[in-house]
Formats: sequence, structure tokens, C-alpha cells
Amino acid sequence: MASHQGKSDVPHTYETLKVTQARDKVLHVELNRPEKRNAMNQAFWREMVECFNKIAQDSDCHAVVLSGAGKVFTAGIDLMDMGGVTLQQSGDDPARIAWNVRKKILEYQETFNVLEKCPKPVIVAFHGACIGGGVDLITACDIRYCTQDAFIQVKEVDIGLAADVGTLQRLPRIIGNQSLVNELTFTARKMMSEEAQSSGLVSRVFENKEAMLEGAFEVASEIASKSPLAVQGSKVNLVYSRNHSVPEGLNYMATWNMSMLQTEDLMKSAMAAMEKKTPRDVVYSKL
Amino acid sequence: MASHQGKSDVPHTYETLKVTQARDKVLHVELNRPEKRNAMNQAFWREMVECFNKIAQDSDCHAVVLSGAGKVFTAGIDLMDMGGVTLQQSGDDPARIAWNVRKKILEYQETFNVLEKCPKPVIVAFHGACIGGGVDLITACDIRYCTQDAFIQVKEVDIGLAADVGTLQRLPRIIGNQSLVNELTFTARKMMSEEAQSSGLVSRVFENKEAMLEGAFEVASEIASKSPLAVQGSKVNLVYSRNHSVPEGLNYMATWNMSMLQTEDLMKSAMAAMEKKTPRDVVYSKL
Amino acid sequence: MASHQGKSDVPHTYETLKVTQARDKVLHVELNRPEKRNAMNQAFWREMVECFNKIAQDSDCHAVVLSGAGKVFTAGIDLMDMGGVTLQQSGDDPARIAWNVRKKILEYQETFNVLEKCPKPVIVAFHGACIGGGVDLITACDIRYCTQDAFIQVKEVDIGLAADVGTLQRLPRIIGNQSLVNELTFTARKMMSEEAQSSGLVSRVFENKEAMLEGAFEVASEIASKSPLAVQGSKVNLVYSRNHSVPEGLNYMATWNMSMLQTEDLMKSAMAAMEKKTPRDVVYSKL
Amino acid sequence: MASHQGKSDVPHTYETLKVTQARDKVLHVELNRPEKRNAMNQAFWREMVECFNKIAQDSDCHAVVLSGAGKVFTAGIDLMDMGGVTLQQSGDDPARIAWNVRKKILEYQETFNVLEKCPKPVIVAFHGACIGGGVDLITACDIRYCTQDAFIQVKEVDIGLAADVGTLQRLPRIIGNQSLVNELTFTARKMMSEEAQSSGLVSRVFENKEAMLEGAFEVASEIASKSPLAVQGSKVNLVYSRNHSVPEGLNYMATWNMSMLQTEDLMKSAMAAMEKKTPRDVVYSKL
Amino acid sequence: MASHQGKSDVPHTYETLKVTQARDKVLHVELNRPEKRNAMNQAFWREMVECFNKIAQDSDCHAVVLSGAGKVFTAGIDLMDMGGVTLQQSGDDPARIAWNVRKKILEYQETFNVLEKCPKPVIVAFHGACIGGGVDLITACDIRYCTQDAFIQVKEVDIGLAADVGTLQRLPRIIGNQSLVNELTFTARKMMSEEAQSSGLVSRVFENKEAMLEGAFEVASEIASKSPLAVQGSKVNLVYSRNHSVPEGLNYMATWNMSMLQTEDLMKSAMAAMEKKTPRDVVYSKL
Amino acid sequence: MASHQGKSDVPHTYETLKVTQARDKVLHVELNRPEKRNAMNQAFWREMVECFNKIAQDSDCHAVVLSGAGKVFTAGIDLMDMGGVTLQQSGDDPARIAWNVRKKILEYQETFNVLEKCPKPVIVAFHGACIGGGVDLITACDIRYCTQDAFIQVKEVDIGLAADVGTLQRLPRIIGNQSLVNELTFTARKMMSEEAQSSGLVSRVFENKEAMLEGAFEVASEIASKSPLAVQGSKVNLVYSRNHSVPEGLNYMATWNMSMLQTEDLMKSAMAAMEKKTPRDVVYSKL
Repeated sequence: MASHQGKSDVPHTYETLKVTQARDKVLHVELNRPEKRNAMNQAFWREMVECFNKIAQDSDCHAVVLSGAGKVFTAGIDLMDMGGVTLQQSGDDPARIAWNVRKKILEYQETFNVLEKCPKPVIVAFHGACIGGGVDLITACDIRYCTQDAFIQVKEVDIGLAADVGTLQRLPRIIGNQSLVNELTFTARKMMSEEAQSSGLVSRVFENKEAMLEGAFEVASEIASKSPLAVQGSKVNLVYSRNHSVPEGLNYMATWNMSMLQTEDLMKSAMAAMEKKTPRDVVYSKL
Repeated sequence: MASHQGKSDVPHTYETLKVTQARDKVLHVELNRPEKRNAMNQAFWREMVECFNKIAQDSDCHAVVLSGAGKVFTAGIDLMDMGGVTLQQSGDDPARIAWNVRKKILEYQETFNVLEKCPKPVIVAFHGACIGGGVDLITACDIRYCTQDAFIQVKEVDIGLAADVGTLQRLPRIIGNQSLVNELTFTARKMMSEEAQSSGLVSRVFENKEAMLEGAFEVASEIASKSPLAVQGSKVNLVYSRNHSVPEGLNYMATWNMSMLQTEDLMKSAMAAMEKKTPRDVVYSKL
Repeated sequence: MASHQGKSDVPHTYETLKVTQARDKVLHVELNRPEKRNAMNQAFWREMVECFNKIAQDSDCHAVVLSGAGKVFTAGIDLMDMGGVTLQQSGDDPARIAWNVRKKILEYQETFNVLEKCPKPVIVAFHGACIGGGVDLITACDIRYCTQDAFIQVKEVDIGLAADVGTLQRLPRIIGNQSLVNELTFTARKMMSEEAQSSGLVSRVFENKEAMLEGAFEVASEIASKSPLAVQGSKVNLVYSRNHSVPEGLNYMATWNMSMLQTEDLMKSAMAAMEKKTPRDVVYSKL
Repeated sequence: MASHQGKSDVPHTYETLKVTQARDKVLHVELNRPEKRNAMNQAFWREMVECFNKIAQDSDCHAVVLSGAGKVFTAGIDLMDMGGVTLQQSGDDPARIAWNVRKKILEYQETFNVLEKCPKPVIVAFHGACIGGGVDLITACDIRYCTQDAFIQVKEVDIGLAADVGTLQRLPRIIGNQSLVNELTFTARKMMSEEAQSSGLVSRVFENKEAMLEGAFEVASEIASKSPLAVQGSKVNLVYSRNHSVPEGLNYMATWNMSMLQTEDLMKSAMAAMEKKTPRDVVYSKL
Repeated sequence: MASHQGKSDVPHTYETLKVTQARDKVLHVELNRPEKRNAMNQAFWREMVECFNKIAQDSDCHAVVLSGAGKVFTAGIDLMDMGGVTLQQSGDDPARIAWNVRKKILEYQETFNVLEKCPKPVIVAFHGACIGGGVDLITACDIRYCTQDAFIQVKEVDIGLAADVGTLQRLPRIIGNQSLVNELTFTARKMMSEEAQSSGLVSRVFENKEAMLEGAFEVASEIASKSPLAVQGSKVNLVYSRNHSVPEGLNYMATWNMSMLQTEDLMKSAMAAMEKKTPRDVVYSKL
Repeated sequence: MASHQGKSDVPHTYETLKVTQARDKVLHVELNRPEKRNAMNQAFWREMVECFNKIAQDSDCHAVVLSGAGKVFTAGIDLMDMGGVTLQQSGDDPARIAWNVRKKILEYQETFNVLEKCPKPVIVAFHGACIGGGVDLITACDIRYCTQDAFIQVKEVDIGLAADVGTLQRLPRIIGNQSLVNELTFTARKMMSEEAQSSGLVSRVFENKEAMLEGAFEVASEIASKSPLAVQGSKVNLVYSRNHSVPEGLNYMATWNMSMLQTEDLMKSAMAAMEKKTPRDVVYSKL
């Protein structure tokens, strides 16, 4: 009987998010304002940061599944809310308004950056509509699954702005097809699940939400069973490598692993492998 | 009755290009030496720069469709012309020749760079052959469509040189498959329209040129109907993001939008959205 | 009768590799410890560097095909060997062990870096299993082919470590689909040949090893027939461009070609083209 | 009578820091554990972040002077404390210890990064000893003054480690003389105030602490009298420029000023200048 | 009698600049609105670009001396002019104004960028006041001399803006002392010639303007006598190196010199050196 | 009685270099062709690489002093030799010659890069002439001392080429004064020891060679007495930091020290410090 039970004791109480224990060492985070189609309000931007910072520190959580409660994944950013960012700025000086708007944007960007900074893999599983800010969100996750009825829409140009919390930066690195990224951005047209898969945005499409969550939990559980040092070290270095050239990435990797290869997990894992066991049979220490 | 009519008054007169008003706020630029299979001669390199610099300044143009007149899109660079770059250099000193050749190459690269620097989206719609310099050209456009009979050919190694006006830099960022990019470059083999689509080089294939142009005009017109600040700001930031890491791109985006979110277009667009209207129903000021 | 025969005289004698002349100007390098499933031992890491440094200097070799002898391509790194890197370090000081481990990793990375530094195109043709270090290896090659029975497996997390000799850096730049790269890395699941092709990891799948080698030799021979300056200059610049932004890549390319466009190969090739001949009909000087 | 009084209402209560209002819109932050020679303990690392994040938000503060209470500026990091970072880590696995040590270092680096991220200019005025962590601290400030009796010492190698919270990154960009930076780092020798000035580390040396603080307050007050948009925008761009190439810095600057040049401060300042007044005669709105 | 006479035939006619032949192969460019203290007006920004682009192409000019006519070097940017950039923008939309302001700033930056892009060394020799835009100008030159009565002033914060045409990017790379750069920028205080020299901003101070010009012409003439390939290749690579890391700079340098070392200048120069002659005794071909 | 004696057993036999044990753990490397003024011939380029690679691996060497035997430090590169690089290339094709010249330059650059890659501090102590390649050499060392009679000369333009083995990349990062760097490069004038010191190129000037070597050995011995992990880790990170932005440098440093802070040297050093001992009293394990 393992000493490492994988039931998280970290309390998670939010207005807009619901966090539950889906499997051993796997947390399930739900966007949880179904009556508002999970539109992103002020509380949401703040709570995402709080939630994923906690998860980053929670050694009983090895992987996360992120989905939306209710009929759709998310209708995206709240228009009122967004207008407010600009309009609530006191004063008439366009420069001072700009100074404050910039602070807000950087703050909103952080809401999705925490998904990357959290070293635990995050699988996003979306269904129905995933609009505007929703695309910023899913592109900051590590693995993307969706249902057949799902679609995404880079909606921002239709409300008069360029997307500014991640889509323009991350989507082109996920979809190989830059021609398609441009088309989606400039026309704001919907991309249905089938095209999302063929273009590489999602790696699997499920028949319905239930099957998708089951599939996502399964993969998350598989990941959660492995050495947390190996999995989380891989995520840290995959993100680093995306932002750097290959030689820079290799240099960083070597410096990273000069300590990580001294881990006991390597010996435990290697011995399990020789005995034809899998990581599920190994008890790794907490991280 | 909108004050912004979208008929460009900017005069465009060229030897190798033909510019017409395709739709409201949409210009159609044609490679126009059909008798020479639109081969790229000295005038072409110069006129492209002139043409797209004018378009960049033309507030009545919101989107561009680029295609080729006659039977093929382009046979690529003119061999005579290219040989000339080297051979016409006076003197025998290989270093002085090199100095002048470099100036020429930088000048030729600029011919396609203007497509990226022009903030209006450029949809290229090609048919038949697209060879050598033609590939450099289409990879510098934002959206790529082609006909079923189209093919591309990275022809340069067959004439003894490494492609130097953009293909080696841009193609690998457009086609997800680096193994394929390498194969195309080293073997100079043709890639037919079907493979062009499956590899992500083009995002749509049309039955014939007529249908393709119709489709391209339709998308261009859709794009042209939207807030020019939103569309062109998106292009500027998509190009910036491709050349920078994700954190660098996000920082720049926040600084960009600190002024852009103060636009009246946002309020106009948001109100239209709430009234279930589309951007086509909004009159945006010129940019 | 050409003076440039393309039969390499450079001696290649190794424990773990077998080098033969496959075609005119084409070398065939085989991983050659079939009884050990071509597992990567100490000798292998050293010999790869020696072998490809020789090939880089060998003006009679214009292209390389790399494959595995026996039933599988490679079982990847030898577990004993790898554990040894850490365990054989003398002393108890974790910092001194780290210092030495880092040197080893940098050395091992070089084993695959030589594939990129060698300016001659390397086509890897793999069959059966390609596990762990094998994925690091194939991602450092220029063109990837495989057989229908082939699969790859980013196995490292299952033995408790993050892959550190290239997979995390190069795989995301080869497969357009980052969601898939993450899934493969975190779950260590197998990816079969079909998915390898649809995701862009390989550009062709063959029915069996024999057909694959035939196909690979054919393409290698085609490449080998062309101007070595054009082909190798293209490789150098493709690798450079991957590691730099588009404007940086263009600047370097212009500086590169200021001498390379002065080559006699250009005139030879252009004249052949005008006479409807192909590069196979031209005798290029050695490089 | 100006509406903008410049008396900060933000409460600052710390164990290790003392914050007072030195002049109009100028705060004075003192390292305040004189009995411990202002050695940097756990509370210090935390409180610096809290303190400067508050100052960053405090629109009544336009400039900061940082100095040390008691006989010396600082004896640097607390050895016990530092050892503790490593030793208090639970468990024996060197990799898990490494994981936690890295988190700590990143946290400690942030303690000085906040000085750069705070857009208000920070003048550090040090006297007596400035050792180890003290050098990391002063190099993250914008302007450096010291007394004649002051000296700095990059002490880290003498306690068996490479400085890891900023000195190795920032000192070489402040002192023009890289040969000297290396000597200071490798030998851990003291550098006295005279050499600090001639090498560019400090820009002024004062006879004693009293004169130095007077001088620092004077300059801070001068800075505080100017347009906060102009001063703080300059700091943001100076820091950005240090981390980027000249063309990158210029591009960012242009994007920054596209909103900032719309400020009312420009007109107010220009009119003052034409009337032969100085910024002290202008009332700028809060930022 | 040398065939290369070094008298430029390129016509230079401007409102704000005066161009004369100072020495063999040396041009003298003067800021020439002495009655306005050489303040930078609209014509100036345009003419600088025109002038230095011509010089870049003029093979009879090997070096340039830049100075100011009348009592001072320059009073900097014209306040009216600058206000105009913002105020003359039509319309009320802060975002559209921002779009146009940015275009203007990029245009103004180009005015000084041309000094760097021109491969011929530019020696700036300034006397009296060098204020605001004047500092942007001199930091874009290669060598800086001044008179004893000269001073510089980074004046921008005093008129309510952050300097945006080069000072914040280039000054910190010229003055080793970042503490001093910050002080100058935040306080807008004057720096007199003595401090300009001790801080490394200028490399020589002369008693008066006459002596300074004589000295500048002497050095320019010395430079002009040498191989233009060697001198201009050095400038191109010095600018490149400043914007890149050392390894990047070395790689570029090697690629640059692979053609440049084939020059006849090398042999001519080497033979002259062996015969104890100097470059002045050699006739180099035009570049 | 220390187990770590610091007498190197690694054999060093060269034509152009002389290696002796100067002090405990300190090696003295001399350029040793005094009859040829230590001009850099083919053997020299090769032997430097061999010598410093050995030193990098030699755990009994903690620091190096590099000087020149005979009357001057070095007359720089051998003109015959250099011309040969170009002239000995077989064939007439300027592109093939370029290809080979580039390989040579990269090889020559490596000769000085090894000084940076060797993690042990290298103090260069030069006297008399230090010309051309000599400047490339000293700028790749960590600490620079010279005698009063010493001078440097960036001689390359006088023989018709741009310096290509390091001076243009490293000198501007060592001397704060870019104006001076440009002047030295474009005019090829001598810089005497006094200016070398005031500009920051050297950090100390000695009366004669004997005193200089004594001083250099003293500092080297001081450095050699300290924890090799601390000293060499500092060098690795100082070099890394020079090539990267501050945030990049800090990130790398944190990853580096996550293992290095686990060293026993830290505890040994800290205990010595508390007992008022110095590193000289501590026996550190070999590295």
C-alpha cells in the first residue's frame, strides 16, 4: 500500500471554477458558470491564476483535466467586462488610459500563462462553442481533445480588436498551417471539430462529452502514474524549447538534467522495466 | 449611405502587374506577362515594391487578392536575369562582385518582404505552374488558395543555387512537415495541389481558376468588411509573433493594444454584435 | 566520361556501424548491432561522431541513407549504459556528479548534432521499433521514411527521465501538432507508421524494408546528382533558418549567396536546363 | 496650489525595511536591521517584493532612494539562511532537492527583479560594506551613489558558490571593464569607492552618508518633479533595450510611444518650456 | 597617377544640409540652419535619409565628417514640429491617431538608422549645444569628437516624453556606465565635454571647432586611404555584432569573409606592408 | 596534508607553446616562438586548441596565465599563412574557394573560442607588441594585464581585410567606449598601455614583464585556492550571460545552481568563513 495516496487536500473554492478529484492524482477543473455559457468575467481571470498556482504547488496532483460545465465550453470574454477595461479608466489622457489598459492586458495574459507555468500537464477537453478568449485558453493547454459538436472561433476582429491574450502567439505554433491560422483570424469564421483535428489543433475527437471526459481522465491517469520528475521536467523543457532555438534548448536541457539524472526515480523505473512492470507499479516520492 | 466608399483612387500603372478593383475595398493584383508565363524580370522586382507600398498607404484598400494572368501563375525567376546579376558586375575582384551581388539579393528579398510589411491581408490564388521564385512569392502571402491543376516546384537546386529570396526561411514555417520541406528542396520535385493541401501549404483547392478567384474575392470581401484596425493589427502581430518567442510576442501585443483598445471600432462592433448585426452593417472610419 | 566518379575512398571501420557505397555518391550507414536490436552503447555514441565527421569531409559523398540492420531500427539507449553515466561518477558530491553528468549529456547530444552539422542530406529509413534515443536520432535527420510495421516511442518518461538528447527540441518543429507531441512525450505511447505519416513525422511509408531502402536510395541518388554547392548550401541555410527568425535567416542567406552565386555550377546548370537536360547530365566539380 | 500633493498614503510596515517620505513624491526605503549589519534574512527577501510592488502601484511616489540603516549598507546574504535553502529540503533524492532549490533561487531573484519591474527610478545610496547579495541588489537599481568609505565585494566564490541572484548578469552591463568584473568575481577582492567610480559602477561618491542622502534626495526630487509618463516610460524602455538588440528596442519604443505621445503632459511641458518654466512649475496628473 | 581620384560627382542639394568635399574621398556634411540653431525640422528628417543613402552608393566617398554650422551643433527637435506629429492627425479616434503616430516615429528613427546602414564610417564632430534629437543623432555615428565648450542633454523628459529615436537604445551601449545613462535620462541634466570624454561618449575633445574639424578630417582621410572593402566590411560586422551574441557574430563574420578574403586588396595590402609602405601608397579599386 | 596536490601530470609538448607549472594548481602557457615574435603559424592555431582542451580536462589545474616569450607578446597572424588560406585553395570556382575559406575561418575562430570554453580562468599578461590576431586572442581571455611598454593594434584593415577571429565581436563588449573601438578598427592605430587601462581593456598595468608575471601568478594562485565549482561555475555563467539577456541569464543560473548548491564545498567554505579562515585553508575535492 503506497504512502503516496494522491488525494489532494488543497482547498479550492471559487465562484467561476469547480475543482474535483477525478482520479488518483488527477484533478478536474471545470469552467462553472453554465448559465452564462462560462463567459469570462472579472472573477474568472483572477481565479484561474489562484487555482493553477495552487495546483502547481500541490504535490498530490500530477495531471489536470480542464472542461466546461453546461452546454458549451465557453462563449469567451464578456463584452461588458472588456469594454470596461477601457472605459472605467478615469481621466481623459489617452496616454494614462493606455498605461492602465496595458497593465490589465498583461494581467489577463497571465491568466493563461499560468497554464504553461504550472509544470503538471493540462489536458483541455472542450465541447460545443469555444469562442474568443476560449481559444486563447485552449492554446495554452498541453493536450487538446474535443467532441464532434465542438467548434472554435477566433472572434476578436468581429468586435473590433486584435486578440491579445495568446491566440496570435500560440495558435500558429500548434496548427502547422499558417495559411489557415490567418484565415481563421481575419475572417472570424468557425472551425468545426473535424478541421480542428485534421489541422492538428486537437489530437482526438470524441462522440460526446461523456466519452471525451472518460478518455481525458484515462490519459491523465496514465500520465499521473509516471515519475513526476520525468513528466514535469519534460513539460518545463518542452515549453522552454518552443521559445528558443534548438541549440539553446539542448544547452538548457543538459543543464537541467545534470541534477535530474541523479534521481532515484531512474533506478526505480529502470528496475520496473527490467521486471516487465510499468510505472503504475512503482511508488515515486512526492514532488 | 456610408461615407467610406472603398473605391481606391490610387493610380497603379505597371509593365508587369495589373491592378483592378475586385470588390468594395478589395484590390486584385495580377502578374501580367502571360506571354512570358509571368516570369520575373527586372521590372517585376521593382514594381512589386512600388505596388505594395502604395497599397499599404491606400486607406480605401482593406484586402488584396494576388493571382497570375494567362495559363500559369509564374515560371519563376528569369534565368538570364539571374545570371545577369552576377555576370554584369564589373571587374574581376570576387569580393567586389560579392559586395554587389549581396546588395542585389537584399533588394530582391525586399520584393517579397513588402507583402509581409503591407498590413492588409494578401490572399494569393495560384493556378498551373508556380516555380522557383513563385514559391518565394506565395510563402510571403497570408492565405494561399490554388486550383486542382496547380503545382509548386522549389526549382533552385536544379539551376545550381540555394533559394535565396524567402523559400528556405518561410516554407518550413508554413508546412508542418519538415521532412517534406527538405525533400522538396533537395530534389526539386513537383508538389501537386492535393499534397499542397494535405501538407498545409494551401488551405483550399478549387476546381478551376474562375471558381478560385470567386472564392478568393469572397473571403477578401468578408475580411474587408471588418474593422481595419482589428484586421491589420492582427496581421502586424501575427508576423511579429512568428519571428519572436511567445513571451516576447505577448509583451509586444500588450503594448500594441494599449492604444488600439481605445478605438471607437470596439464600441461600434460590440453594439452591432449585441444587435445581432455583423461588421458588414458597421461603417468604420478610414485607416 | 566524368572525372568525378563518386566512389568514396574514405575508410569506415566501426563496431556498431556499417558503411557501404549504395549508389554513385551515396553512402549507406547502418546501425549494425542487430543481435542487440541496435541498442545504443558507448561505442555507438563515439562512432556516430567519427563517421559523420568523415562523411562531412568526404567530397565523394553527396547524400546518405541511414537505416538499421536486423529486425528493428533501434531499441534506443542501453539502460545499463545510461544508469552508468550517473552511477560511475566517482565521489558523493551531487554537484561534482552533476558537473560530469552534464559533460556526458553534451557529448551525447553531439552524437546527433553531427547529423545536422554534416552538410550532406541524410535520409533516415527506419523499420520496426524506433524507441527512445532512436527518436532523438531520426529527428536530427533531414528526411524520414519508414515501413508500415514501424512505430516510434518517446520512451524516456517510463524510465524516469526527460528526454535529453534532442527529441524535446526537434520533434515539435517536425510535427506540426504540438498537442500530439505532448501526448506522445507524457504518455510514452507508441505512434504507428500511419499516424507518423499523417502527423508529418515521416514523408513516406513503404510496404517493407526492401522497398523502403530502394526508395531511399533512389531519392538520395537524385539528390546526389545535383550541384553539391546548391544542395549543401540549402541544408546549411535550412538549419540556420529553423534556429532564427525570418529576417535573420534572410540576412544570412544573402551573405551566404554573395559568394555562392559566383559559382560555375550556376552557368553549367542553367545551360543544361536550356538544353532540356537535367543535373544528371552535368559534371559538377568536387566540393 | 497643486492638487497632486505627493504624500503617499500607502501603508508600509516591515520587519526588515523602513519606508519614509523623504521629499515630495519621493520615498526613502532603508534596509533596517542595523544590529545584524542589514544581513538578508528570510523576511527581507519577502518584504522587498511586497514593498516594491506597493511602490509600483503608488501614484504618489515618483522616485525612490534606497539606503542602509546603521554602520554598513549590508553584509549580504545570511549564511545560515542560505545553507538552509539546501539543507531544509526534505528527502534524499538529489533531483527533488534540486527541484526545490531552483524554486527558491527563482524566488530570491525576484526580490531584486522587482527593482527593475517597478517603473519608478530607484537611486541606491550605499555606505560602508556592500557584500555578496548587496552587490546583486545595487546592480538592479537604476542609479548608484556611495560614500568614500564604501566598498563592494562579490563574495560568493569564497563561500563555495557562483552568485545566482543577479550579479553575474547585471554587473558586466554596468561596469564597462569586463576584465575587472572577472577579477572581482574570481578573487572576491574588495573594490573601494574610488575604483567603483572610475569603473562606472557608481556615478558619484560623497564624503559621508549624510551628504550622500542629501544628494540622492535632491536628484530624486528633481526626477519626481517631471512628467511621470516620461520618466517611467523611459525606465521601461531602458530596461527593455538592455535586453534586446537596437532594432528590437527601436521597434518596441515606436509602439510604446504611439499612445504615449498623445499625452497632455507633452503640451503642458512644451508650453512651460516656451515660457521658460521648468517641469517643477507644471502640475502633471497622477499615473 | 591613380585612376581613383576620390572626387565625388554625386549632386547634393538640400535646405537643411550642406555637403562639401573635405579631403580626397572624404565628404563633409553640415547641419545647415545656423539661424535656427540647426533645429530638426520636417525637411531635415527627410533630407538626412536622402543624403546618406546617396553617400552609401557613392563609391568616391570613403568616410564622412558630420558637424553643425553656426554657434551650436543642434538645439534638437523642433517642438512645434513634434507637437504637430500628434496634433495634425485627423480624427478623434485615439487608436487611429496612434497608428499614424507610430508610422511617423518609425520614419524618424530611420533618419538616424541610415547613419548605421551607410557602410562608410561617419565621424561626428560637435560643438556647443547638442540637445534632444542631437543625442539620438550622435549616438548613431561611428566616432564622436567634440569641443571643450560642447555639452549634451537628453532633454526629452523635460518636454513630457520618452526619447524615441535612438538615445535609449544606443547610448547605454556607448557609455559603459549605466548608472550615468539613467541619471542623464531621468534628470535631463547637461553633460559637459569633460564628462563626455571620461564616460566614453566621445573619444577626443578639441580646444575649438577649427581644431576639431581639422582633427576629424585627418582621421577621416586616414580611414579613407585604406581598402574600402576592409573598412566597410568592418563597419557592417561591428554593427551586426552589437546586435547579436558573440557566437552569432562570429558565424556571420565567417560567412562574410568567405568571399571578402578572396579580394585583390589583401594581396595589394600585404605586398605594400612587406615593402614598408602604407595603404596610402596603394590604389584600391572602387567599391 | 592535502590529498589534492595540484601538480598536473598531463603532458604538454608543442612546437609553438610552452606549458609549465607556475604555482600550485596554476599553469603558465607561453607563446613560444620568440625568434618569430610569436607570430601565429599553422601549428599555433592547432596547438592552442589541443592545449586548452587538455587544460579544460585537467583537474589539477585551476587557473592559467598566458604570456609571450621573448621581446613581444605577438606580431599577430603570419601574412604568408593567411594569404595561403585563400591561395592554396585548389580550383578556380570562387564559390568552392569560399566554401573552403569559411571552414578555415571557423577553425581559426575555434582557436580562441577554446579560451572561453575552458572553464578555468585565463589571465593574459602581455608585453610589447600585441598586434592583429593578438588582439583576437587577448579579448577571448578572462582577465587582461599588461606592461607599460605594451600596445595593441587592430591591424587587419591595413592588410585589406576585416578582422574575423573575434576582435570585432569581443572588443566592443570589453571596452565600454564604442567610439574608441571604431576608431581603433578603422584607423589601425596603436593603443598604448595607458589608454588600454583607462578604456578598460586591461585592468592593471605593470612596470615590466617580471613584475607583471609575478602579479598574474599571484592572482591566479589566489583564484586557484578557491572552490573550483564556484570559480568555474562563475565563468560558465559569466560567458553565458554576456551572450544572453538578463532574464535569460538568470533563468539559466537558477537551473545551474539547483545542483551546484548541493555541493559540499558550500558547507566547507561556510565553516571556514565562520572560523575566520580563508579558502586557502580548505581542501576542496577535485573537479
